[in-house]
Formats: sequence, structure tokens, C-alpha cells
Amino acid sequence: MSKFRSLFYPNSIAVLGATDNPARIGYVLVKNLREFGYAGRVYPVNPKLSGKELLGYNVYSSVLDIPDNIDLAVIAVSAKASISVLKECALKGVKSAIVLAAGFSESSLEEGKSMEFEIRKISEESGMIIVGPNCLGILSAPKNVCTFPEAEYHGKVGKISAIFQSGSLLASFMSMANIRGAYLNKGVSTGNEAVTTLNDFLEYFVGDPETNVIAMYIEQVRNGKRFIEICRSTTKPLVALKIGKTEIGRLAAKSHTAALAGSIEVWNSVCRYAGIIQANTFEQLYDFSMALASPLKPRGRNVGIVTAPGGPSVIATDMCGEHGLAIPRLSSASIDKLKSMLPPFASMANPIDMTASALEDLSIYHKVLEVVASDQNVDVILVISPLTHHLEIAQTTANIANEIRKPVVVAWTGLLNIVELIKAMRFLGERGIPNYFMPERAVEAIAVMLHQTQLEATKPYAS
Amino acid sequence: MSKFRSLFYPNSIAVLGATDNPARIGYVLVKNLREFGYAGRVYPVNPKLSGKELLGYNVYSSVLDIPDNIDLAVIAVSAKASISVLKECALKGVKSAIVLAAGFSESSLEEGKSMEFEIRKISEESGMIIVGPNCLGILSAPKNVCTFPEAEYHGKVGKISAIFQSGSLLASFMSMANIRGAYLNKGVSTGNEAVTTLNDFLEYFVGDPETNVIAMYIEQVRNGKRFIEICRSTTKPLVALKIGKTEIGRLAAKSHTAALAGSIEVWNSVCRYAGIIQANTFEQLYDFSMALASPLKPRGRNVGIVTAPGGPSVIATDMCGEHGLAIPRLSSASIDKLKSMLPPFASMANPIDMTASALEDLSIYHKVLEVVASDQNVDVILVISPLTHHLEIAQTTANIANEIRKPVVVAWTGLLNIVELIKAMRFLGERGIPNYFMPERAVEAIAVMLHQTQLEATKPYAS
Repeated sequence: MSKFRSLFYPNSIAVLGATDNPARIGYVLVKNLREFGYAGRVYPVNPKLSGKELLGYNVYSSVLDIPDNIDLAVIAVSAKASISVLKECALKGVKSAIVLAAGFSESSLEEGKSMEFEIRKISEESGMIIVGPNCLGILSAPKNVCTFPEAEYHGKVGKISAIFQSGSLLASFMSMANIRGAYLNKGVSTGNEAVTTLNDFLEYFVGDPETNVIAMYIEQVRNGKRFIEICRSTTKPLVALKIGKTEIGRLAAKSHTAALAGSIEVWNSVCRYAGIIQANTFEQLYDFSMALASPLKPRGRNVGIVTAPGGPSVIATDMCGEHGLAIPRLSSASIDKLKSMLPPFASMANPIDMTASALEDLSIYHKVLEVVASDQNVDVILVISPLTHHLEIAQTTANIANEIRKPVVVAWTGLLNIVELIKAMRFLGERGIPNYFMPERAVEAIAVMLHQTQLEATKPYAS
Repeated sequence: MSKFRSLFYPNSIAVLGATDNPARIGYVLVKNLREFGYAGRVYPVNPKLSGKELLGYNVYSSVLDIPDNIDLAVIAVSAKASISVLKECALKGVKSAIVLAAGFSESSLEEGKSMEFEIRKISEESGMIIVGPNCLGILSAPKNVCTFPEAEYHGKVGKISAIFQSGSLLASFMSMANIRGAYLNKGVSTGNEAVTTLNDFLEYFVGDPETNVIAMYIEQVRNGKRFIEICRSTTKPLVALKIGKTEIGRLAAKSHTAALAGSIEVWNSVCRYAGIIQANTFEQLYDFSMALASPLKPRGRNVGIVTAPGGPSVIATDMCGEHGLAIPRLSSASIDKLKSMLPPFASMANPIDMTASALEDLSIYHKVLEVVASDQNVDVILVISPLTHHLEIAQTTANIANEIRKPVVVAWTGLLNIVELIKAMRFLGERGIPNYFMPERAVEAIAVMLHQTQLEATKPYAS
């Protein structure tokens, strides 16, 4: 499984098309390597800047002039120039290359198709791994490598690895991960997939010990049989958003990355057969990835709901019913304990409605959560937060979650103090506690976690 | 339609159960009237504080001692005490009262049911309007009255009025409105509806010239025939989230506000027959309300999509197909104009993909948007924002939307700079431009706007 080692763990990177114009990608790439703390060797390449320094790195005229082995070449020149530069990389023995330029088979020009054929030939003859063209490249959090121009990457290393047939959507996904705290481990924007495809990265991430969840944005699966085989072979959580629900959506995918999207009916069957968890929206793709990145999975369908506000727990209860989740009665021992903690008008039946009293004294909240979490009838705990006390709720929940061996999911219910809310969300996300705005999304996440438990009971499937 | 004038436009308010303990609702109520800028007369009532001042207001021993007429009494005492206080209010000739306390027919106690019967009797005999019990009261933005304990209300007066059978969810809804900029005009938490019901407020808001959209959270419709008649009688947009999709959800509603929720199948038919726009989640309830509060409605199903990132526009296109929206070719005149503005590799076909060049010079974005917006083939414009430049995109979009007579909807695609994003969202929301995170929600909103256009073509329905 070391196929992509030079791509995701490069010890040396050449940036072809490096420039001193801060508005251009050729500058941003070098700057990102410096700012994000990449510890390997960096070689900007640009004949016009040859001999100068760029952000503290010596600039070379050609990749052939670099007095070092190159693991990864990031190619930020025009489509046409990319071909000649790739040939030099092959000559040099560069192990991996990313071609960013657009204007290949996704364009209407005949020339674009033949250039893409050329890329394939170069890779075949040299054995060089090539990502793209028409892509935004990769993120490798363990190595602090990020080729995305717009990225707020803070060296946070998570457990989700992403394969996206759209660079801009992977940038969106990365921005969500950075705010919500369930971080990425690796990511790749596969572009036109001239050489390396969705399947290649899927196979790699399935075998990657640092990847716990694989998130995919798919416009087209180029070799369906192999895709299904890889998915069936693993128990690792696979979440996928597939485009092409409609005819015009399929046409749009074609003009985007030259992808031939299949019908949604076929896709639904593929997911069932191959054990893939389907996201229906982009937000779900992240919501579900966060749920599955949590180290604990529910062993059964019994949800213990702890709430202060009434209305949201009614919504949560209704949604549990819709997703086949149960809300069991707590054991009599638990109910007795709760009676001693809560005011008489609080509800000890599940959902446990602590009423506002729990906010006056957060130790009550802590104790109640402890009782519910340790109840033998409960497999997973849903905490519904009030509109205030976000950070306190987050801290108390994280403490309890640390003590027990059951998954906890949090639903936030208001935007009253959005700055504090964002902090609380990230705080929990970083600690492996899935959390969402409003109960609908939280219950959906629990259903997805249970789905994964069920998949793992029977996977891997025979091929 | 002046039935609720004393409730929503009170010239004098008595707070029964006022207290000097800042942690108690009896304090927060008085504080909110002062801080939110209520300009009428305020009378705190509490026999223990009689003769003292509370936050600058004279405290009275009983409502009967107040030397003024009282339009609205907000009753923040225990359930049992509420009854005797209500009787005094009736004696005084108070026009409207809000009973906040829980512990009535929603509780399992027999006493609760009989006390609720008592409330009904007091109202019948005195003619006093009573809201609740077991509620959080009202918001009246035009009068700066807000009885919600947790509310971040900044005197913003919007066009959405809300009827909620859950106070905590109305607080959530208000917090969303305050962040996203399509504000509320009025809101009411109806609680157990001992006297005034969902239907009463619905009828009032239908006739209220300051209300353009009515948003409802419904656990139970107590008089279905009348509800349907009111809904059929108006062309005003009605959005509703109904709880009770499942049996356990219906049970939860019963213990929450004593509501008997009907089956979801019946509800689906009611929505079709009565011309109600259904929200399936709480977030949709606000998303759709924001869409319908926009002053402009699409005349047809043709969407012009203006984008910089590629992937999100593929999602948007697919979603348009799913919602029966079309993405027409622009007129040749428009395409010629675009050719002179955009680089040759940009897509002039709809979606119009400006590529990153538009970000280097935002005047390009402005001009492209102008061409698409004024194209005769386009009924509604969807702007897909890149991950950066949120405020500039918002400002340019608002300027264009101001010039043209077509609705514009914005989809944001990333959380890279969340503080700026929140500002941009509110900026557009305040200007009547619906905007959402990710294209799925934006396209859904366009579909809802078109749905409303279609309803208005045939409503009001004969009863």
C-alpha cells in the first residue's frame, strides 16, 4: 500500500511555475508549504526567477537542475506547458506529479483530449504517479502539505480522508472540517483522472492506518466493478455523495470533469450492495463523516435523550421513530437516582427533561448525564443543548464521554451566541463527539452510526 | 382584526411576579422591556417589593393597585398562584394576559386539568384574552416587547410572524432570524392553548398588514376544519413544520403541550388542499420563511446560475433538475456580452462559470451578474459564492438585486472565514435576499418561492 507514499509523504517537493506574484497560485503553493510547516525540502522552479530566492527557497530554472531527488512535483503552469514540464519530471525520475491546469478532456477542444492522452503515456512510460489534470491537488495533514489555494489549514491532523472529483468542493469540505473539529487526514482532488482515479485512492485509503473514515464526492465511477470490490472488501466507514440524480445534473458533471454520471437508481443499488453510506447533501457528507470518525459506535438502537428545552426533544423523538431508533424506559435504579436529582416536575421518562434547573446548577446536568449514560438500557446518548451555556455543556459532555464507553451526540438548538457556539462545536468535534445544529441532524447522525455498526457486523463481503 | 391589539401593541404592561433576583424570569421580563426599548408604561407587581423601585419602575402590591389601565399582564408566578392573579386581572379589566407557568393539562396531575378549565372560565366570563399556560409568551418587534427569557433581540422589525406550539423552539427560531437577517415581526408561543389557539393567531396574522409570511411549528391542530378554512382563504405565504411523523413523536407531543398529533399522511393532504408550504426540518422552516419573506417572487422556473467554483454548480444543476427547475440557454445577445467580459475558457452556457478571474476583478462579477439578471430567458438568479470575498459578493449582489425586478438567491460554499460569512449572510438577509449555506438549500429555497408563485396564481381557494 505504499503506492502513494511519495505523493502524501514527500520528503522533497518541486513547485513548477513558482512565481513572486502573491496573487498567483505559483506563489501560494510555496507560501503554503512554508506557512503550514512542511518540514521537507522545497524547490521552486521558474526559469525567469532562476538563481533568486522565493520565500527563503532557492529557485531553479528547471526541475532537471535540482541537485536532489524529487518525491512530488506540483505543476502550476498552463495546460500546454504542463506536458513539456511533465516530460522533464519523467526524465528527472520524479516519483509523483500533480497537474493543476484545466483545458484538457473536460474542454470542448480536440487538443485537450490529445494532451490528456499524452499525460497518460508519460505516466505509463516513466511509472510516475500523476494526479489530475484539472484539479487542486492534495492535502496531507501528517506532512503539512496542502496544495489548495484557499485553505485555512492549521496543522490539525484528523482521521477522515477525502476523495473528491471537485477541487472546489474539497476546499469547502476542508473549511467545514476546520470549523467543526473533526479534521481531515488526507484529501485528494482527482480532477480528470487521466492516470490516478477514485478507485486508486480508495484502495490506498482503505489500507491507510491513519484513515478511519473515507469521504467521497463522486461525479463518475470509471470502473464500477473494481469500485464495488474495494468497497465490499473493507469494514472501514465509507460515505459518499454522488452527483447525477437528474439528466441535467449528469450533463453538468460531464462539462465539469468529463465525467459520465450514471443514474441514481443504479447508484442506490451499488451503495446497498457494497456497504456504502449515502449522503444526500453536501452538508450530510460532512455530518456523516464526523459521526463515523467518532471512536465509539452504538451497540444497539436505544437512545437516551437528555434535554433542557422541551420542543427540540419532541422533534428528536419524532426523528428517532422515523429512523428506526428506540427511546427505551430507563432502569428503575436510574429513575430512582434521577428523582433525587431533579425537581418533581422534570420528566424522568426518556427523554429526560431536566428543565431549566440544570442550567442554574450545571453539576445537576453532569450527574443526570452520568446516570443516563451508564444505564444498561441505553446504547447511545443524545444531549440536547439549551440556547445558552454552550461551552459549559460542551465541557461537561466531553468529561462524561471520556468516562463511559458509549457514544454521545450533541444537538445545539440556537444561534443566540454564535461565537461561543462555534467554539463549543469545535471543542466537541476535536474530542470525537459528533455535534450538530438542531436535533434532526443529530438523530440522522446516530442512525448513520448504527448503520455502520450493522455494516461492520457482516462486512467484509465476499467478492 | 383588532382582537389581539392589546396583546401585540400594548400601551401598558404589568409584570406579575416581578422580582429583584436577576436569575429569575420575573426580573428578566422587566429588564427586557427596559433594554429592548419598550416605550409604554411598565408596572412590576410583587407584594413583597411593594413601594420599591425595580429597574426604575415603581413596584405595586397587586394589579388592582395600579393607577392605570392595563393592556397586557405577563404572569410569572406558579401555576396555582396564576389562577388567583388571573382573577384579579379580570377584576381590574386587564385586556390580555400571558400565563407562563407549567403544571396544567400537560402534566399528569388531575389538579392541572381543573386549573386549566378555570383559566378558560375566567376568560369566558371576563372577555380577557389569555395566552398559554405553559408558554413563553410573545414577541412584538414593532412595540419592542419580548417576553422570552433567552432572546437576543435588537429592535429589528421584519416581516415574518411565527406561531409556535413550543416556546423553546420559538426562541431557537428567533435566534436564527437574528443571525441570518430575515427578522420576525411578531411571534407567539401558544403553550397549552387553554383559550387562544393556533387558529386564532393564524387568523390574526393573515389579516395583519405588517406580516408577510406566517411560520408555524405545529404539534396539534385543535380545530382542523377552521385551520383549513383560514389557510385556504389567504394568498399570504404559510410555512409549517408539523411534528408527529411517528407514533413515538405523537406521544412526545402529548406530554409536551398536551397535543394530540395526527398522522403525517393526513397532514400531507391538508398541506396540499389548504395551500401550505411544508417544512420537513426546523432549519427548513427558517430557510423557507426567509425565501418567502423576499419581496420578489420568480415568474417562472428558469434559473440563471452565476458561479466561480465548478463543483457546487454541478450540485446546483442536479438539484434544479430534482426540483423541476430549468437552466435555460441565455439569449445570443447575452452570450455575446459575456464573451467580451470573460476569459475564453469560462463557460458562457448556463451555469455561467466566471472562473477565478472574477475574483481578481470584482467589476467583472458585477457586469456578468447584470447580463444574466437582465436576460429575458431567466426568471430567478442563483449566485454561487466562492470560499472568499463574502462581503464583496454580498454587496455586489445587493446592488444588482436593487436594480433588477427579479429574485436573486445566494449559495455560500465554505466556512473559511466564518466571521465574515456571518456578516455577509445577515447583510443579504436584511436586504431581502435569501441566502444559504451550500447550493442544495439555495435551490430548495428557489423551488419554494416558485411553489408560492403557483399557489398565488390560484389562491384564495373557495371554502
